[in-house]
Amino acid sequence: MSESTAKQTIVPRRVAIVGAGVIGCGWAVRALAAGAKVVAFDTDVETARRRLAQTIDIAWPSLEKRGLAANADRNNWRVTDDLDSAVADADLVQENVPERLELKQRVLSHIDGATPPDTLIGSSTSGIKPTELAAGCGRAPERVFVAHPFNPVYLLPLVEIVGGETTTPEVIETAQALYRGLGMRPLVVRREIEGHVADRLMEALWREALHLVNDGVATTEEIDAAVVYGAGLRWSLMGTFLTFHLAGGEQGMRHMLEQFGPALKLPWTKLEAPELTDDLIDRLVEGCEHQAGGRSIAQLEHRRDEFLTDLLALVEKYWPESEDLPGRI
Amino acid sequence: MSESTAKQTIVPRRVAIVGAGVIGCGWAVRALAAGAKVVAFDTDVETARRRLAQTIDIAWPSLEKRGLAANADRNNWRVTDDLDSAVADADLVQENVPERLELKQRVLSHIDGATPPDTLIGSSTSGIKPTELAAGCGRAPERVFVAHPFNPVYLLPLVEIVGGETTTPEVIETAQALYRGLGMRPLVVRREIEGHVADRLMEALWREALHLVNDGVATTEEIDAAVVYGAGLRWSLMGTFLTFHLAGGEQGMRHMLEQFGPALKLPWTKLEAPELTDDLIDRLVEGCEHQAGGRSIAQLEHRRDEFLTDLLALVEKYWPESEDLPGRI
Repeated sequence: MSESTAKQTIVPRRVAIVGAGVIGCGWAVRALAAGAKVVAFDTDVETARRRLAQTIDIAWPSLEKRGLAANADRNNWRVTDDLDSAVADADLVQENVPERLELKQRVLSHIDGATPPDTLIGSSTSGIKPTELAAGCGRAPERVFVAHPFNPVYLLPLVEIVGGETTTPEVIETAQALYRGLGMRPLVVRREIEGHVADRLMEALWREALHLVNDGVATTEEIDAAVVYGAGLRWSLMGTFLTFHLAGGEQGMRHMLEQFGPALKLPWTKLEAPELTDDLIDRLVEGCEHQAGGRSIAQLEHRRDEFLTDLLALVEKYWPESEDLPGRI
Repeated sequence: MSESTAKQTIVPRRVAIVGAGVIGCGWAVRALAAGAKVVAFDTDVETARRRLAQTIDIAWPSLEKRGLAANADRNNWRVTDDLDSAVADADLVQENVPERLELKQRVLSHIDGATPPDTLIGSSTSGIKPTELAAGCGRAPERVFVAHPFNPVYLLPLVEIVGGETTTPEVIETAQALYRGLGMRPLVVRREIEGHVADRLMEALWREALHLVNDGVATTEEIDAAVVYGAGLRWSLMGTFLTFHLAGGEQGMRHMLEQFGPALKLPWTKLEAPELTDDLIDRLVEGCEHQAGGRSIAQLEHRRDEFLTDLLALVEKYWPESEDLPGRI
């Protein structure tokens, strides 16, 4: 994710979707909006066809508003239960079968055998490491990688790209270009771990939320409200690190760590924190200073406040009371 | 947080701010915008005065855009190092001294002795339980409670209200009305625990993020990007539970738990999850069905997509590349 890397973009012409559930259908619609032809494989053709048609119906108005490719055609797709024919001439194969290692390995191995060795094969797995996924790919495991999206796939731009032991750097480069061609923002993960990066964060929050419900501290509705009306408002502009950099006042992250570092020892979650060593502190401070790009805290606050003011005006039109939905506080 | 409770609102006329750091100054500006008179106590009067003036400068344009109270006056404040005079005639005292139990207990005990017994005293503590905070309040501990805000306090509407063993239900009711009068959304937390609700979630995410930096998996910039361009986009509309309800497809949360429940056993974070008992599953499913308010998944998806489309158009004007800041991917 070097700033100096030229951001190459390649729009894939033919995208094969393997497994047409919520995620697979999301990928299909994103590819259609980018002007690609889509072939979706699913063992249950009728259900997949109905689900994909429904996803296109739901998503297309939003995608039109976002801006379609000139050659985008919402009807440029078919569903088949013949995996070989689905993937044979694709530029990019996106695998989205259920999250079971043996099943994914079997399907990826089949795709590996049914495609030319330079066809890129991305897996939507939420948590499995790419090296494990590619273990059964005897033909060309170097083009197998994780490309983990977020629901709804046709709107959220993030895709985590994770290479395994056999994946080549060239494949990671081309993969980034292809997902950029689908209008996405690829985040290359440096090291393969279960859950990659984003799902580790979300899973930590999710597990803590389950504890809170389980311990009778709050309902699902209250926990959701605790996110939506507070930290959730900041998280589409700034992640936790830059947020805490600003919370530290004029001295930023270093002051924040002095003030709240000791809280890492307190039972504020059921998760044990790492030791705040000098090395870790330096990496956090330097990371935040880099992210600040020479801007003062006051300049960053100004930008944040302008965003939050616009966002509040927008989101108030959607919050539960606007439609008499539960969840307002 | 019953839906049927009438949402009483009382605008406080005089607000005392005890401790004028980032959070204290944020409270002060929020109170000024609501038309209140503000007296801020700080041991370092000069610094506090400068900091509060600066916070008003930064915040006021946003608050004007949001809409000020008719009688709002950005100059209606003073700073003093005399705690007795600061709190003597306040309707609401908001304590924001550093996060050390002994210090907070001493300051709250002093405020308790210096105010009439019906003056409400809220503490901004991020993590300390209200029963511990009120332990030194011999006069009227029943009006002491936690009122935990989120930075920037003058824009983010969430405030967690947590009563301790001595806090009366009437005080919790009046506190909600007063914070609503400051334009906020009070979330009453059912049971006092360290970190209340929101900070437990944020702290879990933060600790996991520290592990990821510490283990060399990602930089602060990459972790922030993993939030901003993905889940962060959803979190100002829907919390984790409603998000997962939609991720489950047509069958919602129950299907999602069938599909991703087993992942709770996997090492996707360093946090151990609770057991997914039938009772917990029922509470999650019933909670989400209540939040859905009779809407189908398709209806909720439609609303989410309209929001995300508007939000993407907005946030793209603020994302790093718009100002040539680091952090883009």
